Amino acid sequence: MPRRNEHDRDELRALAIQAVMELAEEKGADAVSARSVARRIGYTPGMLYHLFENRDELILHANAVTVDQLLAAVEKAADRRSPEKALEHICQQYLAVARDNGRRWELVFEHRMKDGQAVPDWYQARIDQLFAGVETQFRRLAPDRKPAELGLAARTLWSAVHGVCLLAISGKLEVGGTVNEKKVITSLVRNYIKGWMAS
Amino acid sequence: MPRRNEHDRDELRALAIQAVMELAEEKGADAVSARSVARRIGYTPGMLYHLFENRDELILHANAVTVDQLLAAVEKAADRRSPEKALEHICQQYLAVARDNGRRWELVFEHRMKDGQAVPDWYQARIDQLFAGVETQFRRLAPDRKPAELGLAARTLWSAVHGVCLLAISGKLEVGGTVNEKKVITSLVRNYIKGWMAS
Repeated sequence: MPRRNEHDRDELRALAIQAVMELAEEKGADAVSARSVARRIGYTPGMLYHLFENRDELILHANAVTVDQLLAAVEKAADRRSPEKALEHICQQYLAVARDNGRRWELVFEHRMKDGQAVPDWYQARIDQLFAGVETQFRRLAPDRKPAELGLAARTLWSAVHGVCLLAISGKLEVGGTVNEKKVITSLVRNYIKGWMAS
Repeated sequence: MPRRNEHDRDELRALAIQAVMELAEEKGADAVSARSVARRIGYTPGMLYHLFENRDELILHANAVTVDQLLAAVEKAADRRSPEKALEHICQQYLAVARDNGRRWELVFEHRMKDGQAVPDWYQARIDQLFAGVETQFRRLAPDRKPAELGLAARTLWSAVHGVCLLAISGKLEVGGTVNEKKVITSLVRNYIKGWMAS
């Protein structure tokens, strides 16, 4: 436990965000509270409220680290020669990030804002960027399609891949026999794109 | 609260199962305990253990009710003229059951057996039947494909649809703009099948 007054504001924020990620990984989303985070970094819960507006803001900052990992994967795939390969790579990377981070990755999707408030702009911008990266590849595939069609395709592929990942990390993909989750992603991405191109 | 000794064993089991479903719907999976279920039906937690082996068995019986709803939807779609239409209908029904039952539907997938034990045979049989219903339609589509290919297709489509449903009921499908979840399902099923047939 670090001693107090050893850290400046930015360091403290970083410590708190790190603590959220660790708690989520070790004990799940429900274990993340101002109290448990404060205890882990050796400060009072009250101190946390000097650093973050509320619990939501603290959690969103931790989730942003995970979203940034996904964004990095999307951007790395962006310059693949074919958009089909880029999309396949993005989706496999999505699975890899989910696999490697388990509960921390789940926290991104389990977390709900208090009173159903909208997420702040800085966070929404990241999510929009993630979508835009997938949409960009669909636009490369079919430059003449309407934006609404590209948006629907990007959202469909993303939520479908997301479902595979969720079931894979909770071990539920195995129902009805063992299965290779990478093969499921490949089947999903290739066939969806092929069908979409032919529509 | 019903008075004791008014019910025979089967009635008591039905009451307990009903209580699990209500608690899951009202308060989520974590609120389902022997204590909370017993309190709701006016018996002691000890009494529950005369009716069910453990908490897992109690929850599985409640989940079986939801799985049976999904099975009924699959069976109802089975005699559609074309397998494409049957699969589309099955997937839209899956979304409808998820939409209408929210947290009770989530309980089917959130519940994890204690100590990672396998689910009992009577429950596994239902899950297998659900898969078999989807596989049957893929076999109608392409009778000459190998069983492993049919299995992969059924599992891919199911987990993808499942992902869309999860995001839809938690309101997360909206990220990056509003969206009609039925359209997402339609896009997913039609394009996946079209691509799969052309592969």
